[in-house]
Amino acid sequence: MNREEIMMRTSHPFDDDKLHEECGVFGIFGHPESAAMTALGLHALQHRGQEAAGIVSYDGADFYAHKAMGLVDSTFSKHKVISKLKGHAAIGHNRYSTTGEASLRNVQPIYADLALGGFAVAHNGNLTNAAAIREDLVNKGSLFQSSSDTEVIVHLMAVSTKTDAIEKLKSAVNEIIGAYSLVAVTDDMLIGLRDPFGIRPLVLGKMGGAYILASETCALDIIGADFVRDIEPGEMVVIDKKGLRSLQPFKSTHKRFCIFEYVYFARPDSFMEGHSVYEMRKNIGAVLAKESPVKNADVIVPVPDSGTPSAIGYSQASGVPFELGIIRNHYVGRTFIEPTQQIRNLGVKLKHNANKAYLKDKVVVLVDDSIVRGTTSKKIVEMVKAAGAKEVHMRISSPPTAHSCFYGIDTPSQEELVAHAHNNDEIAKMIGVDSLAYISVDGLYQAVGEKGRNNDKPQYCDACFTGDYAVELVDKIAGCSSSKKKVSLGAKMLVSIDD
Amino acid sequence: MNREEIMMRTSHPFDDDKLHEECGVFGIFGHPESAAMTALGLHALQHRGQEAAGIVSYDGADFYAHKAMGLVDSTFSKHKVISKLKGHAAIGHNRYSTTGEASLRNVQPIYADLALGGFAVAHNGNLTNAAAIREDLVNKGSLFQSSSDTEVIVHLMAVSTKTDAIEKLKSAVNEIIGAYSLVAVTDDMLIGLRDPFGIRPLVLGKMGGAYILASETCALDIIGADFVRDIEPGEMVVIDKKGLRSLQPFKSTHKRFCIFEYVYFARPDSFMEGHSVYEMRKNIGAVLAKESPVKNADVIVPVPDSGTPSAIGYSQASGVPFELGIIRNHYVGRTFIEPTQQIRNLGVKLKHNANKAYLKDKVVVLVDDSIVRGTTSKKIVEMVKAAGAKEVHMRISSPPTAHSCFYGIDTPSQEELVAHAHNNDEIAKMIGVDSLAYISVDGLYQAVGEKGRNNDKPQYCDACFTGDYAVELVDKIAGCSSSKKKVSLGAKMLVSIDD
Amino acid sequence: MNREEIMMRTSHPFDDDKLHEECGVFGIFGHPESAAMTALGLHALQHRGQEAAGIVSYDGADFYAHKAMGLVDSTFSKHKVISKLKGHAAIGHNRYSTTGEASLRNVQPIYADLALGGFAVAHNGNLTNAAAIREDLVNKGSLFQSSSDTEVIVHLMAVSTKTDAIEKLKSAVNEIIGAYSLVAVTDDMLIGLRDPFGIRPLVLGKMGGAYILASETCALDIIGADFVRDIEPGEMVVIDKKGLRSLQPFKSTHKRFCIFEYVYFARPDSFMEGHSVYEMRKNIGAVLAKESPVKNADVIVPVPDSGTPSAIGYSQASGVPFELGIIRNHYVGRTFIEPTQQIRNLGVKLKHNANKAYLKDKVVVLVDDSIVRGTTSKKIVEMVKAAGAKEVHMRISSPPTAHSCFYGIDTPSQEELVAHAHNNDEIAKMIGVDSLAYISVDGLYQAVGEKGRNNDKPQYCDACFTGDYAVELVDKIAGCSSSKKKVSLGAKMLVSIDD
Amino acid sequence: MNREEIMMRTSHPFDDDKLHEECGVFGIFGHPESAAMTALGLHALQHRGQEAAGIVSYDGADFYAHKAMGLVDSTFSKHKVISKLKGHAAIGHNRYSTTGEASLRNVQPIYADLALGGFAVAHNGNLTNAAAIREDLVNKGSLFQSSSDTEVIVHLMAVSTKTDAIEKLKSAVNEIIGAYSLVAVTDDMLIGLRDPFGIRPLVLGKMGGAYILASETCALDIIGADFVRDIEPGEMVVIDKKGLRSLQPFKSTHKRFCIFEYVYFARPDSFMEGHSVYEMRKNIGAVLAKESPVKNADVIVPVPDSGTPSAIGYSQASGVPFELGIIRNHYVGRTFIEPTQQIRNLGVKLKHNANKAYLKDKVVVLVDDSIVRGTTSKKIVEMVKAAGAKEVHMRISSPPTAHSCFYGIDTPSQEELVAHAHNNDEIAKMIGVDSLAYISVDGLYQAVGEKGRNNDKPQYCDACFTGDYAVELVDKIAGCSSSKKKVSLGAKMLVSIDD
Repeated sequence: MNREEIMMRTSHPFDDDKLHEECGVFGIFGHPESAAMTALGLHALQHRGQEAAGIVSYDGADFYAHKAMGLVDSTFSKHKVISKLKGHAAIGHNRYSTTGEASLRNVQPIYADLALGGFAVAHNGNLTNAAAIREDLVNKGSLFQSSSDTEVIVHLMAVSTKTDAIEKLKSAVNEIIGAYSLVAVTDDMLIGLRDPFGIRPLVLGKMGGAYILASETCALDIIGADFVRDIEPGEMVVIDKKGLRSLQPFKSTHKRFCIFEYVYFARPDSFMEGHSVYEMRKNIGAVLAKESPVKNADVIVPVPDSGTPSAIGYSQASGVPFELGIIRNHYVGRTFIEPTQQIRNLGVKLKHNANKAYLKDKVVVLVDDSIVRGTTSKKIVEMVKAAGAKEVHMRISSPPTAHSCFYGIDTPSQEELVAHAHNNDEIAKMIGVDSLAYISVDGLYQAVGEKGRNNDKPQYCDACFTGDYAVELVDKIAGCSSSKKKVSLGAKMLVSIDD
Repeated sequence: MNREEIMMRTSHPFDDDKLHEECGVFGIFGHPESAAMTALGLHALQHRGQEAAGIVSYDGADFYAHKAMGLVDSTFSKHKVISKLKGHAAIGHNRYSTTGEASLRNVQPIYADLALGGFAVAHNGNLTNAAAIREDLVNKGSLFQSSSDTEVIVHLMAVSTKTDAIEKLKSAVNEIIGAYSLVAVTDDMLIGLRDPFGIRPLVLGKMGGAYILASETCALDIIGADFVRDIEPGEMVVIDKKGLRSLQPFKSTHKRFCIFEYVYFARPDSFMEGHSVYEMRKNIGAVLAKESPVKNADVIVPVPDSGTPSAIGYSQASGVPFELGIIRNHYVGRTFIEPTQQIRNLGVKLKHNANKAYLKDKVVVLVDDSIVRGTTSKKIVEMVKAAGAKEVHMRISSPPTAHSCFYGIDTPSQEELVAHAHNNDEIAKMIGVDSLAYISVDGLYQAVGEKGRNNDKPQYCDACFTGDYAVELVDKIAGCSSSKKKVSLGAKMLVSIDD
Repeated sequence: MNREEIMMRTSHPFDDDKLHEECGVFGIFGHPESAAMTALGLHALQHRGQEAAGIVSYDGADFYAHKAMGLVDSTFSKHKVISKLKGHAAIGHNRYSTTGEASLRNVQPIYADLALGGFAVAHNGNLTNAAAIREDLVNKGSLFQSSSDTEVIVHLMAVSTKTDAIEKLKSAVNEIIGAYSLVAVTDDMLIGLRDPFGIRPLVLGKMGGAYILASETCALDIIGADFVRDIEPGEMVVIDKKGLRSLQPFKSTHKRFCIFEYVYFARPDSFMEGHSVYEMRKNIGAVLAKESPVKNADVIVPVPDSGTPSAIGYSQASGVPFELGIIRNHYVGRTFIEPTQQIRNLGVKLKHNANKAYLKDKVVVLVDDSIVRGTTSKKIVEMVKAAGAKEVHMRISSPPTAHSCFYGIDTPSQEELVAHAHNNDEIAKMIGVDSLAYISVDGLYQAVGEKGRNNDKPQYCDACFTGDYAVELVDKIAGCSSSKKKVSLGAKMLVSIDD
Repeated sequence: MNREEIMMRTSHPFDDDKLHEECGVFGIFGHPESAAMTALGLHALQHRGQEAAGIVSYDGADFYAHKAMGLVDSTFSKHKVISKLKGHAAIGHNRYSTTGEASLRNVQPIYADLALGGFAVAHNGNLTNAAAIREDLVNKGSLFQSSSDTEVIVHLMAVSTKTDAIEKLKSAVNEIIGAYSLVAVTDDMLIGLRDPFGIRPLVLGKMGGAYILASETCALDIIGADFVRDIEPGEMVVIDKKGLRSLQPFKSTHKRFCIFEYVYFARPDSFMEGHSVYEMRKNIGAVLAKESPVKNADVIVPVPDSGTPSAIGYSQASGVPFELGIIRNHYVGRTFIEPTQQIRNLGVKLKHNANKAYLKDKVVVLVDDSIVRGTTSKKIVEMVKAAGAKEVHMRISSPPTAHSCFYGIDTPSQEELVAHAHNNDEIAKMIGVDSLAYISVDGLYQAVGEKGRNNDKPQYCDACFTGDYAVELVDKIAGCSSSKKKVSLGAKMLVSIDD
């Protein structure tokens, strides 16, 4: 499956069988058109969050905000919107809604009027002790306006006794636990911060005299900025008129970057932690071809579009021709808001069609990046078989997804993960393939340049495959989660919004 | 001028020469369709606020909210909106925006997640010490989300050490100063409260087992509820399943109801403080006829529609025929959002036309309720003269408006009030009439049933005429006002909204 | 009832108990801002048609058109719309939809690309032989695009063998039968035409060098034009750069202007056929007071707003005080598009409220202009009685409406007219009044300045009261009517439009 | 470039350097959900026309129509729209607007109320003598409502003296000249027709008892219908309850199918004239690799997405690896309606990003399907060079496009075609490549299965490459064209539409 799939899901969940990144962030300081640059950056990061977008800019005196549900382009392509977002500094955020509570008040960046002045912040990730902190703050008189984790951070700053913004923020982030990369703008500073494990990405760029922070390097490319380096795990950077300072607000820990960014989340044209994402995916395909070859295979067919780089890697490693055996319809947009039953039943056919000439009587190797619930895989396989394929073999460029993620990725509950309760053969049967193989955990580590997984001190966060959670799950253990619903102390607030 | 005029102003300020009520409130407890009843009540109170409307309902467990910019009908006439607002209790609010900051986050009711549970509140009026309190709260760590006075109340409750909602609210209202009537819903209670002077109105109604609170009795009529009584100045009523309790959270003071409600703000079919508003207006017209008769008058012509009751009173008292000498066009709606210059120049003619047959060669007495800046009066007089009137005499059913209101009425700054710097003769010349007369202050008091104004202990708030402000203007004296702009501690937050 | 009522009906037919004018027309020649002038003229004529509006302008070379569903203001107040409608000549049209087929293609003006050049036309009225002509034209190869009568006229012109536009139009109008006033613009001419009986109105105005044609004089007032004269029955005026010519395309006949224009259709500030409409209505009220006085009456109460002038006339003639016993809510707009059942049941209360102080224990005389089905009258009377009236007497300023109109007025079928099958006492009982009286036919003629009805040669069209149809009902007699539905030759075309 | 490109262009013409198919058609007879099936078919044909879509259905008695500007999904995915389109027969149309006159009245299908009953028709293609016929018809009294070619057909039918629909249509199509495939529905028949040369495609499918006509087989696949055969050039099929009849309304001629359908217009998963389009494109890539190899090439990079199949063919034939050297952003939607200047300047970067890891220091072979103006190619090459490519060689899977198409393809005027006035070397210099090669005309014929072009009797229409126009260009020679603008006989009608 692919990003267009993601795009679809948010509007009509016929089918959605991928994990999704929940947010993208962008920040810039020192550019006269900071808001336009931010809109472009968010456009390039659209795959990390499609439900809503927001920008806050700052001109040295005042803050300006605009947020809306919908894609970045539809919100920020209008001149009159951008022209109101004045100033030389701005931060922006793409949001992928995880629950029904996709209301505007949860859209980031969040702005707070602290005693020392305005403060705007946006983050990518998830706090694992937000609910606990929130309950404590509410009991002391804090009024929360959203169900967003981010608001916990600003309330912690508001009640902090420190007297400047950096110290207030340091104090706040030392109380929170989680996987997050944040950008903030306050009294003539842009701040960037990555959690101690560096689970979520954050990169630094430069364009002329302006500094840029972004979730991925593709957001630097779109505006023509140069990539400088990754922000380090646990590093806080403060950018102002004097330049950039690097601070270390946390006690040191070791890096565990999310390995699934390589598999699926990131754009293939991005570089992460020194690697080309496209190259990593091709490497994964090559390892997969070696680990799980298919005898007498005629064609390697990607499940478009996310399976394509791995399929090319698999094809080149195996020598079996790569063909577009499944054709995407480019016009599956966000508009099937009220599908007729007839249209709903078609499911996958609205988006894909079998390229019969290259499937009929062939031994087909389908390459996809992951299987979550298995629902879409089943339909894809049916379509390929209906087109006359002799055999269908599925190869997956990640290990089985058997555990939920609590670090800013939208995952179904563990019960819905097909690999949680079923072994390989059962899944193969369910989706109707002649054979099914996943890359091994060690194979995946090798593809990204390691000798294998160091089980004593794993080099990456791979909790979704291994269940080994890098960051403590405070709220989950306590039985509540601010990321899923608002703390309910007897009452719940449900806000409806006009369509 | 009239309410349609108000309606217009908000969309296209060709002309607007009236003071405006800033809000209407409604609350109901014990009705299975509480939100639909509230929508109807707000519809009847639409003249008190046209820019935005909101309803919060409560079903004993959860709260439900819907707010939108625009008229009540366009927001709440849809079944799908009302059906989401479940429960037996609800409060609603109409808002007349006073500044450019008409953003959705300022639309009431405001909801807060207090430690003891949810709390929703809406008020009509204005706090005169909101800015001072707000600054203090922010310094202690409260984060404000809006620039609304109402939020001050809920933050005061949030930081209160009291442990139940009524005590928290009592504690909060003893810190605020202002003219206000509020309705609130919380843990299975509806609360109503009127400020100690009772400047803004609030009435109690009953329909079957349900209690209703509303700004005016016309909101009881629309749903077929019975009028019970006015809420007393300084009275707090608490309505729950056991019935209604009356509390007295304030030290006693004397009543000073806003006399301008009789002149213009209230609907003529409402009853206030025991009086028919229509009858009061006719009485005012009759007093005006006695104080300022016009020799050889041929016709009494109301400036439609708000001048009509007084004009009828003037006609009946003087024996001069009442005629519709100015005809309104019913189709001046909210839609001239982008008028061409040609259309803009027409001004008053879009809304009114002279009824030439009854103006030509006549001595005309125009009756209007007030003159604020004088701009519209000038155009009306020009139109009447152009239709051939021999003489035009203007009679105004209120004393000269020479002072701004700080108690929940939208007034221009004092400099813009024509009566602030000009005497009667100057104004008559400016608007082009042969004579101009206002009712006297004592005449106005007589018309509403008093012997005259008791200057030692005035029976009404009449600050806009006399400059005698009933409630202390704390923020104004300190030089800041939370009702006009957000407290700015170095920065301002400007949020834009899609059209 | 009143015009606001009409406005409502089109969006939510809770209740609608009036006949309605179906169209208003406007034309101008020789003005640099002809389209803006036309938009203003249509604004003043909005009461003659609320469903749709269109303007076609002409700059001497090209034609420009804009049409839309909705009120004039919402369509034509935008600068970008008006600025595209270039030229020194323009015609415009307001349309009141009579059937569900309110689709854009039926919105006038209609434009046709005749062999000799462009021709745009709009009319107010109805052709009574349109279906017969249409069938004949279709059989000969004409393709109709709309179900509008107007298209019959342009097809007749298209197939005419005459070689200039005026002759083509003359030839066409000598084939059609009906009640209509039309305006047209073609090769640098503005044309106006009134049917031989002059049933529908059309007036001529002048402003500087520009000529104006309009349904009513109020459309001249709004742009500051001078009223010149009524176009005569059967007269065709041709206006071009050389000035105005008057032609007589028909054999002579006698005038029978629609008397109901005086009773209700026209705006009270208009002059028609030499009379002030407001004055005619007051005269009718005075005649009614003499014909049908009410003993011991306490108050004369208009059913707002259309009953007001007659009620003033009745009050002045009877000496009984005129009071606003029913108060309108100004905010009943077009927006109750999807009313909840709760709201629907309220009916009349959304729009009106009883002014109890002036109804309780009173003998009330309600004055209204007409009763069509009787449904609204019943609710109004109920409301007045519920407010405590001792007696309620209804006085109607027209004779009983017992026959349908086929001349451009939206009437229910005869079966739905309460006066068709019921006598006065039955109707009084149905609507719940203590007494009911209509003005007599002769009384109505006297009020408008005649000695009475000349039954041999009636001075007015009064078919709705008398059943005496001035113009032959060709299609009705043949059993088909192009004004109600498209000629159906085996198939019907139903076009849906997005909301 | 690719179809998403097309999609973009219609909303924001930053850049558009492809020829475009102007229409797609679909028809179905004998299915209870004919309109839903048609909506799906149009969805699959969306690449053939993105500006507007329409469906007319027929239930044996009445016709139902819905048309709108915008994509099929946004118009037809709503249940309430589809449910109004009743009946067992339907036709649908996608339209790609060629001029500014994209008004709704030009959206097909066109419906006409012929004397014998309703008739709805839609076509893909262009008539080359429409203007001449139109002028003649207007002179005889026909009134045209649109500037569409299709209306010429129905007017010819209307004035035909034949007495049944099939004979009327036969008579009409024998007067028109052009390249077109049409579908029509009338008195319980579905009709399909392809012009004598069969320039535009039309296929026949079957699903249960229902027959389907569609521009491409992918529209059969989406609803699960079986492909039966291509409609033959000059063939008319009539489908009714008794089944399918094949008629031959024209004198025989030889087939000249549009060869560019293989190169770019058709979807790669469609079959046309017995060939897999994807396979044809791979063959073209293979021929191109042989005709124009690149020495020391490192990577074959498609210009996404339309260059992909040819690039795979080129890679497999040459043995040089295929890589996604240019990554598309999936989120370039239709929404940049009002781009800021900043965004406009970015051009190609909004849609594409260089995959640096696979371009840096590489000899890159870019494969694209065509170069029209050359503007986009230049930007793509710049981007690839900026990413560090050592050499960039462009290979084009069609011969130079040096002539405009008048057969239903949107082409710029000949002057704008870069290959019209420039030779290969000049173009190579302009777009900045180290070498540029197009496939030869004979090579293209070979790739699609011929020995080469038969210059005496060419097997395909290839006018855009050779200037050899299969169908006579009557209007072009006469100097007027109804497909580009309305016949102007002294006047032009410009209709504006609300956004």
